[in-house]
Amino acid sequence: MHRHVTSAAASSGSASGSVEKKKLWGGRFTGATDPLMEQFNESLSVDRRMWREDIVGSQAYARALAKAGVITNEEADTLCTGLDEVAKEWETDSFVVCDGDEDIHTANERRLSEIVGPVGGKLHTGRSRNDQVATDTRLYLVNRLKATRAMLHELIEVACARAEKESDVLMPAFTHLQNAQPVRWSHWLLSHASAWQRDDQRLNDLIPRVATLPLGSGALAGNAFGVDRQAIAKELGFVGGVCPNSMDAVSDRDFVCETLFWASLLGVHLSRWSEDLIIYGSGPFAMVKFADAYATGSSLMPQKKNPDALELLRGKSARVMGNLTTMLTVLKGLPTTYNKDLQEDKEALFDALDTTDACLQIASGVLATTEIVPERMMAGLSEDMLATDIAEYLVRRGVPFRETHHIAGAAVALSEERGVSLGNLTVDDYKSLNENFGDDVLEVFDFGRSADSRDTEGGSSTRSVLEQVDKLRAYLKTAS
Amino acid sequence: MHRHVTSAAASSGSASGSVEKKKLWGGRFTGATDPLMEQFNESLSVDRRMWREDIVGSQAYARALAKAGVITNEEADTLCTGLDEVAKEWETDSFVVCDGDEDIHTANERRLSEIVGPVGGKLHTGRSRNDQVATDTRLYLVNRLKATRAMLHELIEVACARAEKESDVLMPAFTHLQNAQPVRWSHWLLSHASAWQRDDQRLNDLIPRVATLPLGSGALAGNAFGVDRQAIAKELGFVGGVCPNSMDAVSDRDFVCETLFWASLLGVHLSRWSEDLIIYGSGPFAMVKFADAYATGSSLMPQKKNPDALELLRGKSARVMGNLTTMLTVLKGLPTTYNKDLQEDKEALFDALDTTDACLQIASGVLATTEIVPERMMAGLSEDMLATDIAEYLVRRGVPFRETHHIAGAAVALSEERGVSLGNLTVDDYKSLNENFGDDVLEVFDFGRSADSRDTEGGSSTRSVLEQVDKLRAYLKTAS
Amino acid sequence: MHRHVTSAAASSGSASGSVEKKKLWGGRFTGATDPLMEQFNESLSVDRRMWREDIVGSQAYARALAKAGVITNEEADTLCTGLDEVAKEWETDSFVVCDGDEDIHTANERRLSEIVGPVGGKLHTGRSRNDQVATDTRLYLVNRLKATRAMLHELIEVACARAEKESDVLMPAFTHLQNAQPVRWSHWLLSHASAWQRDDQRLNDLIPRVATLPLGSGALAGNAFGVDRQAIAKELGFVGGVCPNSMDAVSDRDFVCETLFWASLLGVHLSRWSEDLIIYGSGPFAMVKFADAYATGSSLMPQKKNPDALELLRGKSARVMGNLTTMLTVLKGLPTTYNKDLQEDKEALFDALDTTDACLQIASGVLATTEIVPERMMAGLSEDMLATDIAEYLVRRGVPFRETHHIAGAAVALSEERGVSLGNLTVDDYKSLNENFGDDVLEVFDFGRSADSRDTEGGSSTRSVLEQVDKLRAYLKTAS
Amino acid sequence: MHRHVTSAAASSGSASGSVEKKKLWGGRFTGATDPLMEQFNESLSVDRRMWREDIVGSQAYARALAKAGVITNEEADTLCTGLDEVAKEWETDSFVVCDGDEDIHTANERRLSEIVGPVGGKLHTGRSRNDQVATDTRLYLVNRLKATRAMLHELIEVACARAEKESDVLMPAFTHLQNAQPVRWSHWLLSHASAWQRDDQRLNDLIPRVATLPLGSGALAGNAFGVDRQAIAKELGFVGGVCPNSMDAVSDRDFVCETLFWASLLGVHLSRWSEDLIIYGSGPFAMVKFADAYATGSSLMPQKKNPDALELLRGKSARVMGNLTTMLTVLKGLPTTYNKDLQEDKEALFDALDTTDACLQIASGVLATTEIVPERMMAGLSEDMLATDIAEYLVRRGVPFRETHHIAGAAVALSEERGVSLGNLTVDDYKSLNENFGDDVLEVFDFGRSADSRDTEGGSSTRSVLEQVDKLRAYLKTAS
Repeated sequence: MHRHVTSAAASSGSASGSVEKKKLWGGRFTGATDPLMEQFNESLSVDRRMWREDIVGSQAYARALAKAGVITNEEADTLCTGLDEVAKEWETDSFVVCDGDEDIHTANERRLSEIVGPVGGKLHTGRSRNDQVATDTRLYLVNRLKATRAMLHELIEVACARAEKESDVLMPAFTHLQNAQPVRWSHWLLSHASAWQRDDQRLNDLIPRVATLPLGSGALAGNAFGVDRQAIAKELGFVGGVCPNSMDAVSDRDFVCETLFWASLLGVHLSRWSEDLIIYGSGPFAMVKFADAYATGSSLMPQKKNPDALELLRGKSARVMGNLTTMLTVLKGLPTTYNKDLQEDKEALFDALDTTDACLQIASGVLATTEIVPERMMAGLSEDMLATDIAEYLVRRGVPFRETHHIAGAAVALSEERGVSLGNLTVDDYKSLNENFGDDVLEVFDFGRSADSRDTEGGSSTRSVLEQVDKLRAYLKTAS
Repeated sequence: MHRHVTSAAASSGSASGSVEKKKLWGGRFTGATDPLMEQFNESLSVDRRMWREDIVGSQAYARALAKAGVITNEEADTLCTGLDEVAKEWETDSFVVCDGDEDIHTANERRLSEIVGPVGGKLHTGRSRNDQVATDTRLYLVNRLKATRAMLHELIEVACARAEKESDVLMPAFTHLQNAQPVRWSHWLLSHASAWQRDDQRLNDLIPRVATLPLGSGALAGNAFGVDRQAIAKELGFVGGVCPNSMDAVSDRDFVCETLFWASLLGVHLSRWSEDLIIYGSGPFAMVKFADAYATGSSLMPQKKNPDALELLRGKSARVMGNLTTMLTVLKGLPTTYNKDLQEDKEALFDALDTTDACLQIASGVLATTEIVPERMMAGLSEDMLATDIAEYLVRRGVPFRETHHIAGAAVALSEERGVSLGNLTVDDYKSLNENFGDDVLEVFDFGRSADSRDTEGGSSTRSVLEQVDKLRAYLKTAS
Repeated sequence: MHRHVTSAAASSGSASGSVEKKKLWGGRFTGATDPLMEQFNESLSVDRRMWREDIVGSQAYARALAKAGVITNEEADTLCTGLDEVAKEWETDSFVVCDGDEDIHTANERRLSEIVGPVGGKLHTGRSRNDQVATDTRLYLVNRLKATRAMLHELIEVACARAEKESDVLMPAFTHLQNAQPVRWSHWLLSHASAWQRDDQRLNDLIPRVATLPLGSGALAGNAFGVDRQAIAKELGFVGGVCPNSMDAVSDRDFVCETLFWASLLGVHLSRWSEDLIIYGSGPFAMVKFADAYATGSSLMPQKKNPDALELLRGKSARVMGNLTTMLTVLKGLPTTYNKDLQEDKEALFDALDTTDACLQIASGVLATTEIVPERMMAGLSEDMLATDIAEYLVRRGVPFRETHHIAGAAVALSEERGVSLGNLTVDDYKSLNENFGDDVLEVFDFGRSADSRDTEGGSSTRSVLEQVDKLRAYLKTAS
Repeated sequence: MHRHVTSAAASSGSASGSVEKKKLWGGRFTGATDPLMEQFNESLSVDRRMWREDIVGSQAYARALAKAGVITNEEADTLCTGLDEVAKEWETDSFVVCDGDEDIHTANERRLSEIVGPVGGKLHTGRSRNDQVATDTRLYLVNRLKATRAMLHELIEVACARAEKESDVLMPAFTHLQNAQPVRWSHWLLSHASAWQRDDQRLNDLIPRVATLPLGSGALAGNAFGVDRQAIAKELGFVGGVCPNSMDAVSDRDFVCETLFWASLLGVHLSRWSEDLIIYGSGPFAMVKFADAYATGSSLMPQKKNPDALELLRGKSARVMGNLTTMLTVLKGLPTTYNKDLQEDKEALFDALDTTDACLQIASGVLATTEIVPERMMAGLSEDMLATDIAEYLVRRGVPFRETHHIAGAAVALSEERGVSLGNLTVDDYKSLNENFGDDVLEVFDFGRSADSRDTEGGSSTRSVLEQVDKLRAYLKTAS
């Protein structure tokens, strides 16, 4: 059953003999299929998007059969040319789906045989839909992931570009969503870019595990015709080589789970980035303004401009997590090799891929167009966010940190009691709290200086921020 | 973004002024929307299936506005008649979607205004899409759940019918998938029907919680025009009354979560039932045979007849669980009232509803058509499954159970040592194990007698089994 | 394996014959158990907390055996008195666990037999740990849920008390976390109380489904000694009656799943409430202040006061959702009746119960002690939040709402262009936008009036808010 | 709140001033903490297992402070020696936990200061618990994962050893749990070992991502004292280098999620392996026998020997998946940098690690000790499982496969009609079905020959199976 099937789905009503004949497996069956079951069982509506991979994989398999001497070279050529014609029909949207085309493999083979005649029946020699569907899915997935990766790189580059350009803007950073310390806006941008870089590294690790060839595993026991699996792998660009065991090859959906987890974690990162921006754009913060292009209004309240894009991004992460739950649960406790339960893999996977690509593109757009309001960011900085700097001032004068932390805490308490900010306490006030305070203590109250003082690798200083940009860009160069 | 959107999604390219004008909220916006965002944001492709509920809800609201004196009765009539025309367009599949119809609410109101003119603009008075979409979804859901309930009743009735008819068939029951005790096949059937009965009871509890009216809550603060919410609830069949707090009313998606959990647990039940049957139909068991109507073959192995329907049922349960994970995760930590993240609710919900309905119907078909092989069931019964009966024989002669358990265990060990079955040990063998064994000990070795001995309420005796059928049917009568 | 078992877990080293003898099922076994397996398999460390329910259930069963004539009344008395002694040992923490006490059932029966002698071996007649553990767990759960319910009532009452007392405080309400409309602080409090009320209603529905008796189902086939299950149910307070099918009774963990879902949804509610308060307490909002009793500081930043309690509440909801995922996944695709996988139910359940109780108590504490800062709330109200009121002003003068929405949008645009607030536009400005504006238009700019204008049931007016309090309190009275 | 906290948890009752003083952050606080909050907030009961990593990390940090000139070398030595003493107390179980020791960091620093005096207060200079806890957790995790990896290698080696030794045993392989084709038992063993090899490869990729250093990131803004993070990373064995951005470093829990996903997927593999064996060991299959060491009996049914170990393994996978759900959900939508919600990471992580280690060890034990019953495996082979071989026989004689598939299907139908096996049809029967059948057609009916015919890489032939063993062992050599 697929997402387009509603409860009121019309019955096709045509489980007729002629339909049955077209099935790849009709030989020993006598009863007709329940029309509702036909619909429940079919996957063409979902897997048709892999038509190209199915054809490319079949062409490689035809050539492998020829090389192994199972069919002649001429037969292989006929098959490959016929498959090209089938491809053309898909490309031009002229492929006509027939009753009985329960999946893309059946549909393509049926059409091929109509075009090339009985030799079409040789293509499936030693092959099963079990190894075929795993091959198609992996091939399709590798192609998608490469495109996705480019979108992820784009997002990281947008962050780098802004971080470089806006490195002079200061903002309050939060822990526990409470005022913590001043940082550069660029530092915040790069904190998210760092997470996206990890996503990219994981994706890089993942692709070869997807690109491992199941073809040549048959239904589960392997191939009895001596096809050269390594050669097929090379031809199809399966850089991870061949699956080492035929029973495992048709049973394994790790590559689906890994992709869904990868996408879930990316989604989580986007959701946290969205949450930050949604909060920074809320009325009392007002530190950022969303572009009209990514906001919408209210049907009731005329003044509203809502960060819908970011909210959708936040929500979509849950959707991909749902897909991950689905797939792990499908597999948990499932007897090995192929079971029809595995058919659930594709909708979960395709939905996650589509969602991820859309999210990445929207995120790039939002990131590129969101305006910052530097004066609101400055207004959000308060001198109590420099209490740590007060403590560190004393540390530099030899007072153990733990003690300075208490002294700074006392300064905070004093300022609250007085109703003034930390920077409006006097030098004498400070001296009364600890003898190590000097006349220069009030110099601490400079937000930019505070951010720049954290100048270790990865810190919030301008130098560090620009270094982070350089490193990310260097990474992107090697990563593509 | 919806499932039909691929990464290669064509841009509509038409974020033109004329489009913008059609938005419900365009007043204060100056920039155009990113076409990709338009697509990411739209929900019409998903929520169009609620067109009828949207119209019915609007008609009730129009009448409420008239009753409250906000519009005239004539205006209300105009609106209702206009909405009837819109409905007719949907029914006849002649409704033309325009750019800017971002959701079903916008589309219907846009079309209404084209039909009835400016008075159409009065319909939304005091209403927000926030309370409107919650109302539509609840209304749609109640209707769906009632239909689903009928399918569930059908499934339970199929189980009852078979249980009644086939109550003389004995089968081995398993714990830990190891031979446990003989039971009637009907007892197994009813064990699953019991779980489905709980599903039905939960559904019965659930419906009034879905049927609670949010309309009249506005965007979040309530309605300023004095509409009579109780009257609207009554008119629309909201048996649960009205949502008690307007901020909660637009924020609450408990009814979606509850439905998804309900469907998940039903799915889990169907998956366990499927697992049982898949195992019972496997080669070495061969206790059941699947009808051709619900089985499929292999593209490689000509002898295969696979229980695809059951495997799909088992897999689908994971899909619904994924939807539950999605929805709980969407809500977790979300600031209250309406956020756009909530738009994810409908795809998860609709997918679960469609999946559940299809599963229930397929399950009924499979249950009605699966053949049992009584002789294979008998062959699966072995005399060690009566070891408990041996122990209980001694209990009836006054030996403490814990001791009889050890004695019966010793009999099992003796039979294994001798390489004979328990029933082929001699009376003397038994007497040598314990003096309380009498000459009638071998009468224990009667599988039917064993099953019938467990005659307490809910036990595996014929009497109990038939009583269970009666009670279930009585329940179904009151439940519909 | 339990949470306290680390990988370096010491082996007990004592899988000796004497230990084996103590097992309830040692009869036919010859090999010793792997000590690591002993640990992996044991559940006493987890299920010991059900000692009381195990004993109470056994006493009821002993009496049922006597009534059925399986044992004498004297034997039943001996068993019951012996069990009382065992209970006393648990109560006084003097129960000594022995090797081989793999679960609470084994431990209690072993100890009972030591106290009362061979008659102890009669207790388990016709009973299996399969029906026993399900009985104990349900009994334990019912008791816990009743206590949990009282905590939930307390939380709702705290919300009512504050809502009643602080109904004059106005605050900005948000949709999409953007300024939406003015409401009363009490209205926000009650929006969460409404969600908690639904939790309470669900809990009320849930308890009878938990309180359904499996005892008398044996291992799976029922009870061969004619115990009166209805009488046991009554004695033990199982208000839901008896499980209708013995195979289902030992297989069913719906009551665990339902409880976990219930707790997940409550957790989601608490997480949203926490999120609201965390944001309202952030620097730029500063609308609430957390009590020291529920906040903590930073080890580095002396000025910090972090809302740890709320953050933990938000995080804990994810933990309970994890438990729900665990349990649904344990059950999915599991062959029916009892499998050892079911042993996972208790840790997931107990963890969820403990977490929920702690969360409810902490939430009550936080809710009772969080200070509001009314002047900051007022500062958060801006006149653009009355744009809807402007539109509604015109509606009252006959202009269709959709048009008034655009006019109010134009007013917002004008005010932004002028750099003044909506309320600082002049009457003439308004008249220039639409002729229907009158001289009284500026009276709209009164936040309290705006809130009070939404006076339908469930709206944000003072009247409505106080009515909501009354209804909630009336509910609580009937609910306990 | 931790798993050991029950609802009846005793209040500590001692939120006294003296306790408060011991907190790292008490400076500005005036109110006392709610005792229940103290308990809700504390993590020492969970994170105490990281005492060693906390100390080692602190020693590295002390040396880094000295190198940076913040403290003297003598002070660093004092701190390191003092920390060694603290370590000794943990090692000898003599560390005394005090009120106020809310986590392992606080406890260790408190004790250190008691031992070395005020200089202890210098250790935390520029450090926050935010970067400290991330460092400790990563360090602990790397150590655990290395040990886990050795257990995984052990399991793979057990599979290799059996596969090599038992390569002459044939068994039926299943798709859809229906008889499919004959394979070698070793091929089944290696199909699972292949999955475990992928787990090992993923673990190898994962470790460097865990071993990336957050220390030197402070609370979020970086370190103001110029500590050399690269040097700390090298000293502590963080092979992945340093976290590139300080805000991200304290916010990032990807390494926890990745580990939980890794463990979930391993768990899924073990669950599928368990499911296979549970089914193969069920009564009607009886192809394997479980060792007493990993089986248990029934308290009611004396004959039972249940595969508890495998069932627990199957169930535990759900538990780890629950932990994954928890952690992804904790992070989803969380504002960035540190929030207290992150404290949930450790229980989820530690539970998954403990569970995984126990599962791997139990799985190795079960795999090593499960007996196979070759004659039952042979009995499970039926000649219809050679229908594919019949089809392939014709393929070798030039008939297109799709046609041969139908012919073989007709042979199956004929044999069913005749009530004889495929191999008991006559040569003439075959010739009547297709003219290309020769007199040698019945030679097809040799199960071993069938398995050996699938001799491509990864196939089920003896040659391939032994090659798979060699490759796996070669992998293990390079992997350690």
